[in-house]
Order: sequence, then structure tokens, then C-alpha cells
Amino acid sequence: MKRLEDIHSPKDIKNLNTSELTDLCAQLRQKMVDTVSRTGGHLASNLGTVELTVALHRVFTTPKDAIVWDVGHQCYAHKLLTDRYGRFDTLRQQGGVSGFPNPAESVHDAFVAGHSSTSISVANGIAKAKALTGDKGYTIAVIGDGALTGGLAYEGLSNAGRSDDRLIVVLNDNKMSISENVGFVARYLSHLRSRVKYVRIKQKITKVLNHTPLIGRPLTALLQGTKKKVKRTVYSGTSFFENMGFHYMGPVDGHDLDDLIEAFRAAKSVGKPVVLHVNTIKGKGSPYAEQKPDTYHGISRFDPDTGIATSGGESFSSRFGQTLCDLAAQDNRIVAVTAAMVKGTCLEDFKEKYPTRFFDAGIAEEHAVTFSAGMARGGLLPVFAVYSTFLQRSYDQLINDTSLMNNHIVLAIDRAGVVPDDGETHQGIYDVAMLATIPNVTMYAPSNFKELELHLRQALYDTDGIAAVRYPKGGEDHRLVDYEPNYKPYCWDDDGGRDLLLITYGRTFGEVAALCRRYREAGKSVSVLKLNRILPIEAEVVALAAEYRCVLVLEETRGGVGDLLGSRLMQAGYGGKYAVRAIEETLGACTTEQGLHRVGLDAEGIEAFITAQTEGVYGR
Amino acid sequence: MKRLEDIHSPKDIKNLNTSELTDLCAQLRQKMVDTVSRTGGHLASNLGTVELTVALHRVFTTPKDAIVWDVGHQCYAHKLLTDRYGRFDTLRQQGGVSGFPNPAESVHDAFVAGHSSTSISVANGIAKAKALTGDKGYTIAVIGDGALTGGLAYEGLSNAGRSDDRLIVVLNDNKMSISENVGFVARYLSHLRSRVKYVRIKQKITKVLNHTPLIGRPLTALLQGTKKKVKRTVYSGTSFFENMGFHYMGPVDGHDLDDLIEAFRAAKSVGKPVVLHVNTIKGKGSPYAEQKPDTYHGISRFDPDTGIATSGGESFSSRFGQTLCDLAAQDNRIVAVTAAMVKGTCLEDFKEKYPTRFFDAGIAEEHAVTFSAGMARGGLLPVFAVYSTFLQRSYDQLINDTSLMNNHIVLAIDRAGVVPDDGETHQGIYDVAMLATIPNVTMYAPSNFKELELHLRQALYDTDGIAAVRYPKGGEDHRLVDYEPNYKPYCWDDDGGRDLLLITYGRTFGEVAALCRRYREAGKSVSVLKLNRILPIEAEVVALAAEYRCVLVLEETRGGVGDLLGSRLMQAGYGGKYAVRAIEETLGACTTEQGLHRVGLDAEGIEAFITAQTEGVYGR
Repeated sequence: MKRLEDIHSPKDIKNLNTSELTDLCAQLRQKMVDTVSRTGGHLASNLGTVELTVALHRVFTTPKDAIVWDVGHQCYAHKLLTDRYGRFDTLRQQGGVSGFPNPAESVHDAFVAGHSSTSISVANGIAKAKALTGDKGYTIAVIGDGALTGGLAYEGLSNAGRSDDRLIVVLNDNKMSISENVGFVARYLSHLRSRVKYVRIKQKITKVLNHTPLIGRPLTALLQGTKKKVKRTVYSGTSFFENMGFHYMGPVDGHDLDDLIEAFRAAKSVGKPVVLHVNTIKGKGSPYAEQKPDTYHGISRFDPDTGIATSGGESFSSRFGQTLCDLAAQDNRIVAVTAAMVKGTCLEDFKEKYPTRFFDAGIAEEHAVTFSAGMARGGLLPVFAVYSTFLQRSYDQLINDTSLMNNHIVLAIDRAGVVPDDGETHQGIYDVAMLATIPNVTMYAPSNFKELELHLRQALYDTDGIAAVRYPKGGEDHRLVDYEPNYKPYCWDDDGGRDLLLITYGRTFGEVAALCRRYREAGKSVSVLKLNRILPIEAEVVALAAEYRCVLVLEETRGGVGDLLGSRLMQAGYGGKYAVRAIEETLGACTTEQGLHRVGLDAEGIEAFITAQTEGVYGR
Repeated sequence: MKRLEDIHSPKDIKNLNTSELTDLCAQLRQKMVDTVSRTGGHLASNLGTVELTVALHRVFTTPKDAIVWDVGHQCYAHKLLTDRYGRFDTLRQQGGVSGFPNPAESVHDAFVAGHSSTSISVANGIAKAKALTGDKGYTIAVIGDGALTGGLAYEGLSNAGRSDDRLIVVLNDNKMSISENVGFVARYLSHLRSRVKYVRIKQKITKVLNHTPLIGRPLTALLQGTKKKVKRTVYSGTSFFENMGFHYMGPVDGHDLDDLIEAFRAAKSVGKPVVLHVNTIKGKGSPYAEQKPDTYHGISRFDPDTGIATSGGESFSSRFGQTLCDLAAQDNRIVAVTAAMVKGTCLEDFKEKYPTRFFDAGIAEEHAVTFSAGMARGGLLPVFAVYSTFLQRSYDQLINDTSLMNNHIVLAIDRAGVVPDDGETHQGIYDVAMLATIPNVTMYAPSNFKELELHLRQALYDTDGIAAVRYPKGGEDHRLVDYEPNYKPYCWDDDGGRDLLLITYGRTFGEVAALCRRYREAGKSVSVLKLNRILPIEAEVVALAAEYRCVLVLEETRGGVGDLLGSRLMQAGYGGKYAVRAIEETLGACTTEQGLHRVGLDAEGIEAFITAQTEGVYGR
């Protein structure tokens, strides 16, 4: 038996037999469950791709061959086999092993992943570069059926299929996206899976392969040669991938190592781009994860025996879901849209209560916005609940299909600001700057749950055009539970002095308000301007800020209000001191607290910033 | 005979017979050719959809039924039939009839179009709103085969097909995108078109329809009833659309009015979403446009008899294409990517000279960027030539697939700034602000052709990460032909005074330089800081600007350098006067000159701006 901890490179598994590899798979699963129960992470998707990954590394040789993991939430086995076992306990922790592939971490990681549906386009590019530079290596994209719902995957298939490069698309079909898969892809793949006829003929092919020294060649001859009739029988109903230009193979049992290894070898010898359809079971090997794969898709720490999560509680997301249900009960124009994030955005109740008014677009943020704009045009009140980072997919649709006609849609922007655990591809730090470039956008940033409710109402009923409400992952600041929001675009806590004004919004307000109390207790004059509506910049805010000798902006975003307000103050002839604390660095995996600390937006960082910027302001 | 000028509403064609409608089609074509020869516009696509449009308005009743035109460059017949004949001579002119659909122009225009592949998502939304509000109207999306190459169309199909709404997708298949169509869609549709068997059976269906009082019902019975076998024979090979959830019908001859009218009536009665496949000939009815549909896709004014264009000359685009060819001859790592704009971005020579290094992604800007990032990762030097407005589609791919890994790709951003004729959906005014929100972006803005060459070299060889070069549509300013560019990030024309600094870049520099000469001749002190590299903002530029009493920024974009520099100056403690002249309003159709005038960036506007801002600066 080969111990997992002794595998330091994929080379170490090249000579293992099936029994040893099977044993390795069990060790990989054990290590994953142990680790994720302590660190949190993507469990079900990683459990489902253990054999797939082992077989890939058995047949292909990274980094000469490049494996491009789509989304990346199935790369744990890959990481454990490519010299990251020793550090795997640091998964998704600051300075630790990232939960997603990253070339900066290992030469075996071909490309950063995190957002869905990119792998075929990436692999198309890498394979093309190999072809043009005479590199004989293969490029393998591993993409789930869920990711196939994204338009970019379709564009990738359509383009990659036109090449003659050494490209293999492994379709990891677990009949699930993040939760249940929807629409065309689900229907079509189900159709492919049902072709019993294929399975029988496949067994014959396998036999041929097993009894020939040069594995693969006979298959090639069989498939590409004159026996078109056989091919048509075997691969009937595959016109989608074949019209894309691919050679289609499968489905293969994704938990049968021998079948997988043979299929990969066969795929190498086809001589044109291949789609290899692999059936896997999401959560494979863990009773609770197999049973509830959506719950164990991405999870917090849990008890490895029972699978029961050790954290929870009310969050901005859950309060959003609940409030939207309440509002929808009063107004049947309200409809809810998600892009495969019904659980993450807490729309499960809405889905159950208002099934005809709920729409899961799949991983298709572009469609979600344009579809919402169409519904708005037809007199409905669409609310698209989306993670900040994924809204980036909809930039053009927000401009052309929404802003230009001033169509009224509401964006419930979840996971705004620092996002724990998932690292740089999931930080919600572009939304403010992005939306600031678009006309007809109003943006709210609640600081506590009550304010979230209020802002959602304002976004629906007091705002036209694009009305965004941004809120972080997690709960409200306990110090702000009793904070009473109001309808105004800003809240000005004025102590009468004109030395220092702190401008902030959203989650940061809790820390700033606490600091303000301390300052005042210490006899220092400080005013706080809490922005409720952060976009557009209010003329009143500019005028008010201009009254102070020193204005400091603190915001949990990369660029945004600080730059716009700075420019406005400059143009208004403000001559005081002005500085901005925002998120400037790339934030890898971290907890929320660590992230806020690193960007200087925790209590310590904020105080240090203010102290540095206000030298000479006090005590004159 | 019914005269086209007497049609004031689609109602006026409801009672016309086939012969009268045929005659109307000829009049529509004549009017289009006459008008476009004088105004420029999209000719070939509009000539191809005349019968299609007439048949639509014969069968459906706008605005009760909603027609959503994809991209919008096939809506001229629609406009002529919906009370815009009298003003049609003003096509694409300032204050005139827009070349694209716009609800602000007519209740018969259901949605703004301009960017590709949105119509199915929009129609899905409008149809859903109708269904939820009890409106019995139909929603019809008219989408070309080219637009089907975009991922958003796939997302739209996949989602819309899951509904039970009154939705008809008319697939306007002219075997062309903007130029020749590529990839999956082309192959797949060609497959559908070739099904001779269908045509024969279709004739039978037509006969049934022709001999029944309630048109459509028998077809429904035929298709949805128990005669599944017939259905399967007729509609074999259509699994793509049927797996999407649609009922597929076609192909129908798109120039046969009777067939079209029958098909639309049949589609209405199906009771679930329908894809109706219509074959059209791009440029139909005009010998030159039929022969060269890509040339006559979007054209300038031309001689209506010969089709010979009356304008031309070298442009930033043509100089880009030529320079890239020259550079590619020296460096075989250079590859070129376009998203269906080989002609518009002047990559035709490159395509011919370096066919293995040239990639037309179809209308798939997301793929184009991610594919380029993959190629960069593999050691190539990809140059993606793209219109500013269409680059908006790639925002997330620029962040996650490119910027995060600091992958080196070059963006040749064409049609930046004011874009003539096409109106609000095509203005290139978001690129600077959009790219400013992304880390690892360097952006150049050449003012003349020589500088474009230099910047392209710098972007390729002196820059890492995302290197963008933005340039306008059209030629260089004749006053700048002899302007000698240099390698520095900026050019400072300092007259020694410190009263006024004008900061500008790109096309605007011509006007500013001319004005600067006039000011100096009049004895006024003025310095000019021409930015060559506009992003990131240089610390040196901030320091230099801070030396002046008054700093004015003039830029042909909506937000961008002005706001960032303003914020930096504010944070640097600059106490002088600061103002920005940028593009703030929504710009409809106009010439470049009119556009620049309206936004105040022509000679007159710039001088007025400077005069207003410098009151008190001179003559103290």
C-alpha cells in the first residue's frame, strides 16, 4: 500500500496498480473530509472527482500536459497529488493552500480558476499556444455539467472545436450544478446518459483496447476509419458536441479507475479535440455529502462523523431572503432571479412560496440581467440576487440592456467587500467602482439588518433605473443591532467641531462609530458621515464635507466612493486634507477578520490610518 | 397598389393581399437603398429581412405583441412600416431616426438593441411579464445566425425554452454573421438546411393548412398529437433546439411571403416556445449587396447604382492592421483575435498572411479575452482587436482570467470615444473608466498614426499584464501628421508659466494643441500635458500638475482619467483650481463632429470651457 503522504509528485503514482490506486482514492477522500471538517471548503464536488483526478495524473504528465480545472472547486485531489499534502491543513487559510488552482502556488496548476465556465476557452488558448510553438503536450479542461450552463462554455466549445489541437474536454457530469442543474444541459446530458446501447458497444471497444499492445490506435481506427456506421450507432444523439467539432466519447463511469484510464488513453489518440463524458456522483464516498450534495457543495466547518455544521446564525443573506418574501406577499409584481445561487443568496423560501415568480438562470449572469431588464420592461419588479464578484459578468448587460433604457431592476449584491476563505477570485471589491461607471445607477449599502430591509424597500419603490443594495457575507455588527436607519441618503453625526469628518458606509460603519465614541470620550472632535445611498455622489455630501479641515473616507471596496468624492471635492475647490482608505491589495484566502486587518479596515487599521492622517489636526 | 408612404401603422397592411405585399417589399427595398446610399447604414442585413418583417406585421400586432430585434441592424423595414417613413431620410443623423430600435422613438420598438445576442433573454423577460400579468400578447425575438455564436444567446435559449410562455424565436439564417459565420452555429444550421426530406413533408403540411378554416390548429394536432413518428421524421437532427425546450419549425423560405405568413400563424398555435428557422439572403434584391454582403453590412454613403462608396482613406484602424502585420512578420509569437469584426478592425490582411495565427471567435468577446489569456499563458503574444463598446462584454474575463495572473494580452480598442452614426449603444465611452477599475492595466492613447505604431510596440514589448491601446474611428488630425511621438508616458509642452495646464490625450490633443498655439500667440501663458500612457495615473503627472494654479483635464470618455487624477490631486493636497471636461450625456446618432460639439470637445466647446474655468487666471 502506498501512503498518500509519500506522494510528492504525480510521478509517484505512475507505477501503481489499480488496487493501489483504489486505496489511494480512499486516503484522498479521508484527508479531504478530515481537512474540510476543520477548515470548511468545497466538499461534495471534490469527493466526486477523486478517481477522475487520479486517472488523469496516471495518464497525463503535468506540467508538460496542462490540466485546466473549471471553477476550481474540484481540485483538492489534484492538490494532494501535486506536493501540497504536507500543507493541506492550511486549506483556505491566510497564507495557506488556496481552495482554487493557482499557478503561483504550483507549476501543476495551469490557470487560476474561481469563476465558472472559463476552462474550455482557457484550454483552447493553451492548446493553441502548444500547437504554434511545437509543444506536443496535451491540454485537458475539466468542466462540470453546471458550468456548461454558462454562455462562455458554449463560446469555448464552439471555438475550440474548430481547432486540430491536442485538447480534451472532460465533462464531469454529476447531474448537479452547485445545486440541481437546470435547462438544456440537464436535459441533454440526461439524454446522453440514457443511451444503454452505447454501454454495450463500449465494452467491446474496451476489450479491443485491452488486447492490443499500442493502446488507443485500434479505437482510433474504429472511430475515424470507414466504419462510420458503427460510429453512428454508438454515438447517436451526440450532435451537439459533434456539431461543435468535437469527437464525443462516453459516458464513462467516473468512479471506475480502469475505465477512466482507458478512456483517457483513447482520448489522447483521437487526433482531434475530444469531449469525454464522465459520470460522477457528487459527494461520492461520504454518506451525508452524497445525500445532500448541494448542502456540502461549499460548507463551513462541520463534524466529520455526522456532517453537522458548527456555525450558522442569521446573516445579511438570510434577512434579505426573508424580507423579499415578505415584500413579495404584498406585491405580486416582485420576481426573484438567481444565477445558480439559490442557497447562497437565501432564496429557497422564495422559490418554495412563489415558484412561478422565481427564476434560476443557471450560471448565466449575463442572461439574468438581460432577462430581468425584459421583465422590468413588461411591468414586473425583478430582483437579481448575485454575489458581487459574479455580477462582473453582467457589465455590458447592465449598460446596454438596463441603464440605457433606465429599466428598473434591483440588484441584491451579496458577498460585497472582503469575502472569507475563497480567496482572490471571490472578493467582492469591484462592484462599487464598476457600477459607478454606469449612468442611472443608485446604490445602497446597509450597515445592519433593519437597514437592509429599508434599503430593499427603497430600491424597489423609491428608485428608478438600476437600484443596487450591497451587503457583506455574514451577520450584522452586534454594536449596530439597535442602530435605527432612516430614509435619508446619508446620516450626519455632527459634534459641532469642524476638524475631522469620517465618511464611511456599510459594514465599516460599525468600527468607525465605535472609534468615534472613543475619540469623543477622549475629548477629540470628530464627526461621522454615514452614507446610506453611496451612488450617485450627493451634492449635499460634497458641500458638507467641504466644511471640514480634514475628510477621511473609509470603504470596503477597491476604488469607488473615495475617488469620486475626491474628484468632486477637488472640483469644488476644497482646500482641506483628504485621504481614502480602501482595498488596494489582492486578497488571497483569509477569514473576514484577517482580510479586514490586512487591508487596514479593522479597528486597529482604521485608528492607525486616522492617526497618521490627522497629525496636526488635533491639539493645535 | 398601396404606396409605402401611405402606410402609417402596421394596421394599414393587415388587409393587403400577397401581390400588394410583394409590391410593398419592392418599395421598402428601394427606399432603403436610396436612403442608405445617402446616409450610410446597415444595408445588406436590412435588405434580407424585408419579407420577414412584412409577414411579421401581417400576422402580429405591435405593440400588443412585442418584436425584439437582435442587434437591431435589420429593423429598417420595421421602422418604415411603423410611422417613420416620413422622417426616414434622417436615418442615423443627429435628431433623426435611429439606425437601431429604441422604445423612446416608437411604441412599436419593444427594446433597445445594438449589442448582439440579447434578444432571446429580453423576449424571455417580456414574455414572462406578459404571462404573469395576464397579457395574451406574443413576444417575438428575431435573431440572426451570427448572433447565435454569442454565449448570451445560448443562455437565453436554455432559459427561455424552459418556460411555457407565448414566445417565438425567429432564427434569421443568412449563413452570415457580420461576415462569414463560423463554428458550431454555421455547421449546425447548414445541417438543418440540408434536410431535403423536410421540405417535402412541409409542403404537405402547408397543403393541410391551406384547406382548413382555422389555420394552425391542424398543424398543432399534427405536431403535438400522437403522430410522434411523423414529427421525428420531419424534425430529425433538431435536438439542439428541442433539447433547449423549444418546438423547432423550419426552415422556411424567408423571401416567400405566403410561406412566412403561414409559418408565423402556425407558430402562434403551438402553445410552447418555438424556434422558427427562416432562410434569408443577406443583401436580397440588390445585386452588389447580395454579392458582397459583408461589404454592405454596415457602409458609408455610396452610389446607389454602382454601390461604390464615396468615402474612405487611411484610418487608425487600417494603420493598426498594417502595423500588426509588420510586427507579426518579425515575431511569430504574435497572434490576432477578433470577435466577428475582421473587416471593421482591419485584420483582413493579417488573416490572409497569417491564417494559423488569426482567430475569429464569432460574436464572443468573453471567449476572445479568456482564449487570449490562455494563449498568453502558453507563451504567445495575443492582440485582441475590439470595438470599445463591445469590450464591455469581457469585464469579468479581464479581471479573473487576465489581471489576476497578470497575463500579458494586448487590447487594440477601436471606435474609442465618439462614434458616428450608430448612436448610444455604440459610443466608445466606457473603456477608460472600466479598465481603470482593474489592476495590472496599462492604457495608451495615440493621437496620430505614428504614435499608434509606437504604442502598439510598447503594448507588446514594454508592458506586462493587460496593455490597451485606444483609438477613435476615422483618420488622424491633419494638424498632427507631423507630430513626433516619444517613448515617455507623457509629453509636457511647458512655456515656463504656471497659470494654466491643460491635460489631454488621444484625438482631443489635436484641438488642444491648436488652441494652445492661439493662446500663446495672444500672449497668454498655457502649458499642455499630453498623456501618452493614460493608465495607470503617473505620480510624476500628479506632481507636475500640482505646480499649476489651474489644471483642466479634457478627455473623450465618460469618466476616467479626470476623476482619478482629481482624487490624486486632492489627496496630494493640491489647492489650485481643477476641472474636467468629459462626456457626460447620452449621445444618440450624430456625426463625429456633431458628437464632439455636443459634448463640448470641439474647438468651440474646448475654448468655452477653458474661458469659463480660467476667469481670473489671466490678466492679474
